Amino acid sequence: MTKKNAFYAQSGGVTAVINASACGVIETARQHKTAIGKVYAGNNGIIGALREELIDTGKESAKTIAALKHTPSGAFGSCRYKLKSLEQNRAEYERLIDVFKAHNIGYFFYNGGGDSADTCLKISQLSQTLDYPLQAIHVPKTIDNDLPLTDNCPGFGSVAKYVAVSIREASLDVASMCDTSTKVFIMEVMGRHAGWIAAAAGLAADSEADGPHIILFPEIAFDRDKFLKRVQRCVKKYGYCAIVASEGAQYKDGTFLADAGSKDAFGHTQLGGVAPTLATLVKDALGYKYHWAVADYLQRAARHIASGTDVEQAYAVGKAAVEMAVAGKNAVMPAIVRGKGKRYTWRIEEAPLAKVANVERKMPRNYISADGFGITDKARQYLQPLIQGEDYPPYRHGLPVYTRLKKVLVPQKLKTAFRV
Amino acid sequence: MTKKNAFYAQSGGVTAVINASACGVIETARQHKTAIGKVYAGNNGIIGALREELIDTGKESAKTIAALKHTPSGAFGSCRYKLKSLEQNRAEYERLIDVFKAHNIGYFFYNGGGDSADTCLKISQLSQTLDYPLQAIHVPKTIDNDLPLTDNCPGFGSVAKYVAVSIREASLDVASMCDTSTKVFIMEVMGRHAGWIAAAAGLAADSEADGPHIILFPEIAFDRDKFLKRVQRCVKKYGYCAIVASEGAQYKDGTFLADAGSKDAFGHTQLGGVAPTLATLVKDALGYKYHWAVADYLQRAARHIASGTDVEQAYAVGKAAVEMAVAGKNAVMPAIVRGKGKRYTWRIEEAPLAKVANVERKMPRNYISADGFGITDKARQYLQPLIQGEDYPPYRHGLPVYTRLKKVLVPQKLKTAFRV
Repeated sequence: MTKKNAFYAQSGGVTAVINASACGVIETARQHKTAIGKVYAGNNGIIGALREELIDTGKESAKTIAALKHTPSGAFGSCRYKLKSLEQNRAEYERLIDVFKAHNIGYFFYNGGGDSADTCLKISQLSQTLDYPLQAIHVPKTIDNDLPLTDNCPGFGSVAKYVAVSIREASLDVASMCDTSTKVFIMEVMGRHAGWIAAAAGLAADSEADGPHIILFPEIAFDRDKFLKRVQRCVKKYGYCAIVASEGAQYKDGTFLADAGSKDAFGHTQLGGVAPTLATLVKDALGYKYHWAVADYLQRAARHIASGTDVEQAYAVGKAAVEMAVAGKNAVMPAIVRGKGKRYTWRIEEAPLAKVANVERKMPRNYISADGFGITDKARQYLQPLIQGEDYPPYRHGLPVYTRLKKVLVPQKLKTAFRV
Repeated sequence: MTKKNAFYAQSGGVTAVINASACGVIETARQHKTAIGKVYAGNNGIIGALREELIDTGKESAKTIAALKHTPSGAFGSCRYKLKSLEQNRAEYERLIDVFKAHNIGYFFYNGGGDSADTCLKISQLSQTLDYPLQAIHVPKTIDNDLPLTDNCPGFGSVAKYVAVSIREASLDVASMCDTSTKVFIMEVMGRHAGWIAAAAGLAADSEADGPHIILFPEIAFDRDKFLKRVQRCVKKYGYCAIVASEGAQYKDGTFLADAGSKDAFGHTQLGGVAPTLATLVKDALGYKYHWAVADYLQRAARHIASGTDVEQAYAVGKAAVEMAVAGKNAVMPAIVRGKGKRYTWRIEEAPLAKVANVERKMPRNYISADGFGITDKARQYLQPLIQGEDYPPYRHGLPVYTRLKKVLVPQKLKTAFRV
């Protein structure tokens, strides 16, 4: 086996555990020195390859690399950048191959979601079309939990845990003051196309009386009257109503609640904010005192409350990706497979990238209760193990210690720059 | 010493650690059985006394009471209810005395902030004016950190830790994607009148390059141009700009940024949201892609990331309150006193309630940097010890286990109801 260098890049929205996958990739590559030479990481994702900005991970100590396992965000930088098809932008692919050739790169690890799986697949095909030997392995990551063939996606479990913990805490807060104060609390969570994250918040309720009492999913068309009736019923029955709203909550015609036409003082359309939109709705129709929260990036960056299962799995897919590469695989993705027993178990298996790219996994309708406002036992059984376990980062002076990389760039070898 | 019962009530906005104070009160009272008989808690605060809804804490097991130490919110219920002066509403005070007499209550523990200290003082004076022997002790609690005579207020340290951890995490998230995505992130935090909480977020930055790059305090008049210039400078210098805005951020004329006149689709004024207001401002003036978060109740309920110091101090003031009562004190508050040494130490001392009530402690101007956008070393020295230490709650199935009380009400003895 000829020794080749590896290229690793982070893609799309970052998570609390994507660096744990990076850690898995780099630590495992370091154990396969006969097959893998250097591990280069793209500075700001695939753009780093196009610009020939390669971070030499060899310049980072073993301790720093190990600390990636407990550091949120994308330590090497990430980007939202989708490669067009080979026909549409051949120059981009040729540039990639030029960079890979110049740096003797034979392994391509792409850590991302659906779009990245597609890019990774395209690159895996370059071996044939551009006659350059390259093994491309996709490392799954997305808080959206929408990749097919894998039981779940690294990154999701930690957001799930964050939202469930947060709404459990906030619900208790509201419950204790609802007699004379706030009666309706709304927490907005991520998930523009699917309600996986919103569903996870449902884990916080051990009984019907617990918050969240209402969950709004993008999958269920928002019905103003039905919603308001339910809010009123909860307030009458429990004294308060805790609501979790997906940012993707929408009307029957597909209009997002968040785009419901709010204007600022200057008359400009104000973007975003399902939570304030719902709050206004409740206030106007029912007159209840409300509060609302928008977790936004806090939820996907919350490494301090990461799911232990998620951290382990994120590391495992990184590790498995390298092992698959060393075993000669191409165009595959390490997928998480759930064991069949009652006790939760999981293992990593190989999934063909051709079946992953451009396939979006939707949340099954039977995960949402018949009334559309909650989750079913089936959903609980699926979701609960994913938030299991606490994996606390180290602290210093009361704050989590997150690592910083030196990010030493490899000297450029190409004479041409590339504008992305 | 004649054995008397005790009454304990939670008041105002709840916190992650107010139940730790309740735990301190009840556990300590149980150790003083010769002086203190039963401990009754007001159902929903002082309203519970007026309505003669007294929770018998003796019906809760030692294990449940111990679990209060790691349970956020107000386990007995809290309320926003300020007693008027004796002259203005004598009936209310007479009702209180009736209830206290009927249940042989000789100790009054009131767990709250500034308004509650005032109420507690008034009640302490009832001994004379209404000729009923009663010792009233105020147990400090407020995330606003604005009580005088105490170095800090239980509840604040945990919010401080939450906001510092959250902005550290979110800043890393934004930093890793700013090359092609979000450039400005705004996190809104509580603090309508003082910037203590916003200031605490500043602890997240170890250097000038770290987020938060800009903090907006209620104490510093908002200057649109200066703010926008600073945002632009940060984006140019660091690639992104992380902002923490106090909900109380305001213009020179005292108008809150959050009340800047946003209208919803129906033309109604939309309340709240410094963060979205600033985001729109940035977008319109500079065109940067933004994201924003509003932590709202999540921050004050976040027991999962409570400050160890805060939990200890919250317990200690509850414990000390009972000890002061047993020692015959009246109209006092256990205050936290900081040691003079370089290493952080603290102890509890007695503060006269007359000097606490109706005095608001402001944040010193020298805690805010000269440019008005950050905190000084002096502020760091004050704030850092308050977020020190992690005190994690127990977990089950991936979620924190927070205790629920049985809340067994004491049989009513009075024949009359009282409407509040």
